[in-house]
Amino acid sequence: MEKRHRLELKPIGTIHSPYKDSGEGPYQGHRSKKASRIEVFKEFEEGLQDIEGFSHIIVIYWFHKSQGYHLLVKTPWDDITHGLFSTRSPNRPCPLALTIVELAAREKNILKVKGLDAIDGSPLLDIKPYIPGVDERSAVKSGWLEGKLGRERC
Amino acid sequence: MEKRHRLELKPIGTIHSPYKDSGEGPYQGHRSKKASRIEVFKEFEEGLQDIEGFSHIIVIYWFHKSQGYHLLVKTPWDDITHGLFSTRSPNRPCPLALTIVELAAREKNILKVKGLDAIDGSPLLDIKPYIPGVDERSAVKSGWLEGKLGRERC
Repeated sequence: MEKRHRLELKPIGTIHSPYKDSGEGPYQGHRSKKASRIEVFKEFEEGLQDIEGFSHIIVIYWFHKSQGYHLLVKTPWDDITHGLFSTRSPNRPCPLALTIVELAAREKNILKVKGLDAIDGSPLLDIKPYIPGVDERSAVKSGWLEGKLGRERC
Repeated sequence: MEKRHRLELKPIGTIHSPYKDSGEGPYQGHRSKKASRIEVFKEFEEGLQDIEGFSHIIVIYWFHKSQGYHLLVKTPWDDITHGLFSTRSPNRPCPLALTIVELAAREKNILKVKGLDAIDGSPLLDIKPYIPGVDERSAVKSGWLEGKLGRERC
């Protein structure tokens, strides 16, 4: 049963954000023009070399305010219940968040970014370069979400 | 020092892949047409409802063959040393893998996908729908990787 063993992660930094609590962050971070600061712990600073050449980075962080989950959920986009894994709900068995952000500047171990939906204090887990040739797909179908984005229900 | 506490993950499934060991997987999974099977553990099957409406999904898994890391690394794309976080190397402080794959079919708790670079037995951590309006960016600069993809060095 090795596959079901628990896995352990140690954060590599902390996110400093204008969104102070759950519910304050935008549903899609990139529509926000607010700036956030990603603090990468000093011991990992050397790993940021060359990152400033990329206009966009993938930020993986921990939904630290997530508390448990349901396998069927409602979202802001309609009144229908959907399977959790066909939504981007933060309440997931593995509360891993993934957002592509614009990298505005780097100062040593601090990255200034735009479009990050994380709330203040979120533990940073990983940063990867965003590469259109690897991370984009054409001819995409968006299932139940087709045409709904930008028209969230309050 | 709460922020530096270790975080714990419990896999939600297992990836069954034609790539049996490190080094066999393609550098960019989507260039492969080989099929993989994602087994979501039965207890999470209900969360897959509606996933079949999406042509592409984001798969987050654990680089289970990753052993330690260096903050400066060489890649197949050139002979220059780059900061780890400006590469997609599997050897990372948090060995989290992220691949966008084509969802070919779903049979109960099994997803048949194309373009997954995971090696056989990789623990599955999360599945999210791939949504162009959320996950794509325009006017992207790819830093040191610009123009290098598809021209890997052996």
